[in-house]
Amino acid sequence: MNFFTSTMRNVSQSTVRRLSLYLRCLEDFRARGIPTVSSRELAESVGLTPAQVRKDLSYFGSFGKRGLGYSVQDLESRLRGILGVDRGWGIAVVGAGRIGLALARYPSFRTRGFELRAIFDNDPAKIGRRWGALTVQDIDKFPKVARARGIEIAILTVPESAAQEVADRVVAAGVRAILNFAPAGLQVPDGVAVNNVDMALELEGLAFALANGEGSGD
Amino acid sequence: MNFFTSTMRNVSQSTVRRLSLYLRCLEDFRARGIPTVSSRELAESVGLTPAQVRKDLSYFGSFGKRGLGYSVQDLESRLRGILGVDRGWGIAVVGAGRIGLALARYPSFRTRGFELRAIFDNDPAKIGRRWGALTVQDIDKFPKVARARGIEIAILTVPESAAQEVADRVVAAGVRAILNFAPAGLQVPDGVAVNNVDMALELEGLAFALANGEGSGD
Repeated sequence: MNFFTSTMRNVSQSTVRRLSLYLRCLEDFRARGIPTVSSRELAESVGLTPAQVRKDLSYFGSFGKRGLGYSVQDLESRLRGILGVDRGWGIAVVGAGRIGLALARYPSFRTRGFELRAIFDNDPAKIGRRWGALTVQDIDKFPKVARARGIEIAILTVPESAAQEVADRVVAAGVRAILNFAPAGLQVPDGVAVNNVDMALELEGLAFALANGEGSGD
Repeated sequence: MNFFTSTMRNVSQSTVRRLSLYLRCLEDFRARGIPTVSSRELAESVGLTPAQVRKDLSYFGSFGKRGLGYSVQDLESRLRGILGVDRGWGIAVVGAGRIGLALARYPSFRTRGFELRAIFDNDPAKIGRRWGALTVQDIDKFPKVARARGIEIAILTVPESAAQEVADRVVAAGVRAILNFAPAGLQVPDGVAVNNVDMALELEGLAFALANGEGSGD
């Protein structure tokens, strides 16, 4: 993985997103017993141009042979390595509310190597409640539990007003990646990655499309 | 709004996202009684460069006066118009499961002009159950209910295997915008906008950042 370290800053979030999409197609091709795939086929499957596919994959060195396409298995395994999903990641959900509960049951978690290892809240009424195999823990125990269970990614499903404070606490405990569901922009130190899932932003994007008569631009 | 129709295809999804962020900052400035804002201040609030802010706003004609900055109220109201959130939008949730339930209670829905007007499922055990002011309806009634209640945006929280079929049905009923939570790429006709919220993609983006030692690149 060190090979990519020096170049990764040039790789945009949208490139990473496309790599994830390629990975899904390749998994699908493999499940269907298809051994090789051309950039054109891959492009069609994800709704992009073959040139875009070739450009994205070229960031990470040369794959495939001209005229023969890519080996599905090879490319899949290299993409897993590039995306960092060739290993397990320890995840904690902070905020044992409805969204947190829904996420904890999200079926794709496991198949992608993401392991939900702890759930936290600060509400005494929620602390101690069972959630499948896990028990909701006091957020004050985050540093200790995170260390013991190898928490590397924190999913924040807390109210907007609490989001920054909770982010500060998980970062202080050594977490370097946050998936934030609160509609709040988080300030984090360099070296900490934050992805925001914001329903209101997504809906506003659709409202813009409707108001401007736009078609699917995804 | 017609003014933008001819240019909207050149406006990227990430531009629209930044406009949403500017709008939030402006709402915040207004709430704090601040009458004008410079592109530098706006840029700092959202973590972008002043040049980016000026470029984004210039797409939509000229705002603000050199040296005086932008009127917070004016810019807010114009951004609302551009984003299409200066009016109400009728929303339906399709899929009365955990995620659907969590979304239906999402507090930002209303403040942004998004009105949840119907919830659908195909499970007889769920149909007829009350959900706050709404009752879960049979998906077979979607066309009729959507027409009666002015449903313009459908939020799909159905299993991956059902997503395309449900999308086809809501599009056939005249819906032109879909927020899709299923980890499935939807095929829709031209003129239909789809935004995907995909937890696995977000987590993979974080895994990439962790695996490559990347900092916050959001």
